[in-house]
Amino acid sequence: MKVVIAPDSFKGSLSALEASEAIERGIRKVMPEASTVLVPVADGGEGTMDSLVSATGGRRMEVIVTGPLASPVQASYGILGDNKTCVIEMASASGLYLIRAEQRNPMLTTTFGTGQLIKHALDEGCRQFILAIGGSATNDGGIGMLQALGMRLLDAEGNDVGFGGGELRRIVELDVRNFDPRVAEADFLIASDVQNPLIGPQGASHVFGPQKGATEEMANKLDEYVRHWADLIERKTGIHLHDRPGAGAAGGIGGAFQAFFPTKMNRGIDVVIEYTKLTDNLEGADLVITGEGRIDSQTASGKTPMGVAQEAQKKGIPVIVLAGSIGRGIETLYQYGIHSFHSIVSAPMTLEEAMEQGSELLELAAEQVFRTYTASYSQNC
Amino acid sequence: MKVVIAPDSFKGSLSALEASEAIERGIRKVMPEASTVLVPVADGGEGTMDSLVSATGGRRMEVIVTGPLASPVQASYGILGDNKTCVIEMASASGLYLIRAEQRNPMLTTTFGTGQLIKHALDEGCRQFILAIGGSATNDGGIGMLQALGMRLLDAEGNDVGFGGGELRRIVELDVRNFDPRVAEADFLIASDVQNPLIGPQGASHVFGPQKGATEEMANKLDEYVRHWADLIERKTGIHLHDRPGAGAAGGIGGAFQAFFPTKMNRGIDVVIEYTKLTDNLEGADLVITGEGRIDSQTASGKTPMGVAQEAQKKGIPVIVLAGSIGRGIETLYQYGIHSFHSIVSAPMTLEEAMEQGSELLELAAEQVFRTYTASYSQNC
Repeated sequence: MKVVIAPDSFKGSLSALEASEAIERGIRKVMPEASTVLVPVADGGEGTMDSLVSATGGRRMEVIVTGPLASPVQASYGILGDNKTCVIEMASASGLYLIRAEQRNPMLTTTFGTGQLIKHALDEGCRQFILAIGGSATNDGGIGMLQALGMRLLDAEGNDVGFGGGELRRIVELDVRNFDPRVAEADFLIASDVQNPLIGPQGASHVFGPQKGATEEMANKLDEYVRHWADLIERKTGIHLHDRPGAGAAGGIGGAFQAFFPTKMNRGIDVVIEYTKLTDNLEGADLVITGEGRIDSQTASGKTPMGVAQEAQKKGIPVIVLAGSIGRGIETLYQYGIHSFHSIVSAPMTLEEAMEQGSELLELAAEQVFRTYTASYSQNC
Repeated sequence: MKVVIAPDSFKGSLSALEASEAIERGIRKVMPEASTVLVPVADGGEGTMDSLVSATGGRRMEVIVTGPLASPVQASYGILGDNKTCVIEMASASGLYLIRAEQRNPMLTTTFGTGQLIKHALDEGCRQFILAIGGSATNDGGIGMLQALGMRLLDAEGNDVGFGGGELRRIVELDVRNFDPRVAEADFLIASDVQNPLIGPQGASHVFGPQKGATEEMANKLDEYVRHWADLIERKTGIHLHDRPGAGAAGGIGGAFQAFFPTKMNRGIDVVIEYTKLTDNLEGADLVITGEGRIDSQTASGKTPMGVAQEAQKKGIPVIVLAGSIGRGIETLYQYGIHSFHSIVSAPMTLEEAMEQGSELLELAAEQVFRTYTASYSQNC
């Protein structure tokens, strides 16, 4: 029997890799001879880099870059096993998690560090880029990233503007002469589930600004500044970003990629599925076990178990979900190929207790679920 | 597919019948055409009467009797569907749960009410008795029961002794002339897991006295009084109860049954399995689902899931256990025919929350477990 084990992380408790190893231990207790394939999966959010690095036998690079508030931060990115594709989590250099809640201010925060990671990877020889752009602290339209890669953004006096969304309004000219020429030779695959346009009520500033520290007044201003920036790009390049789907991702960096980089955008989970070769790994499998910390009807939109299930469904392989917490509305997920759901919680306990014992609980649940799954298998077949 | 649903109660949350109905609902969601047989099971403790009454289509009788401390209590017993077998839970008339903790005193508590229930059932025409003797408040050697059925227990002055273990020492003579003659025409099946002798360090007074309110000094005295009573019985009947296994059950009422009643003793779960016709119901079944509130390595000794599993194992039918709480050491239970264990708890929560939502949680767990069980069934068969 071949079992593909493809969980996401159990946030706060287990990484996707640890989760897949715990599930494997549970299965091996029941059937030591089972063929297991571990495919730790992330959905394009936190853990995407680790997932792809581990799936391809790649390596992790550590770089000091300019953080969201200009002070240096230690960031990392991954180079995959093919030695030419890199995977960058934007949050590692420009993430909300790098600053304290009271420091959040999208007028000031910059994507400069993300640009530095791209530059570092170009220096390392990478020409295939995967960018997971969730969790950013920024609303700067991507200008920090462009600056890090050599683009000059000039004000009315011909001086370079500074960092942050607040500077967008001051830009009157783009000077692309020193923009890193290797960008044009590379391919950028943006892993993002965000389809929002760059500006307007559904745009970056209004929808994502508040969680990055924008007041309503600030969001109004930012939207106006980003519009100014989009107008400028259109005059310079002919590219109309204003209402383009995905241009509003990660404070408008989605738009900057679309205007200045050879870019494709794809759903996070689909990027991860492609690069972990999940589909190849499913070949000949009898069962898929996936999971994550919490599952409910919201899981339908691009979360790992759904993405995994949709792939498995194409091949008619049943998918069982193990989750720390099973919420309401899961029955809507059966149609996408999820066969059943099991909580790993073995008794009444607190969330803290469940997280502390995550590895044991997941192993036990996987064991029991596999026993139940194979009960009729061995009985009837 | 035929599924036998044979859970115990989920204490504090669901009766065995409610539990079996919740499990059935979960299964029917997956496979409306499944053939389900509900066999609510108890292990000879609380719920035994309800289990047997419900399994046989019997009825419940309500009777006012003398409680453990002589004040009247409303007790009940069951008459099974055959209209001649009755099932009496001793605790209903003489149970520890009928008195407050500070009232516990085995010098005073009497089994008189249990005798009254037997008399009532004899009047109703019953000649087959099942007595579940767990949970008693008494250590009176069964003299209260004997008195209720007409036996006279006389002191040195020729007067009847009173109630409670403290009176045993005063008995010098038994007068059986008015002992209900219908007792001898009847059969008594005692459902009890207790193998303790009547007296000594492993006897009723020392082992079970303390939980009924005996201090160490009181337990010593009670053991001495019960020995006096056993000596008297031996002189009168030739029956040596002192070290007989099971004579120490329920404060020595086990011994009284053995001396004066046509009696067989059996493990509680086995009695319930026999009278619910579980074995017949297992004929042709593909799967058995059992369960109870908590399961762990202690379950090996006579609890419902074990008893059910042992029957199913004889026929090679896999047994899945659903439990509110899964403790340590369950792997020792596989050898007895339990195939797998699943908690009904769907997320971190308190015991109170789990109990409140017991019915929903059990239904959901049964549904998911049945989905997983049938996944390979439908795929491979």
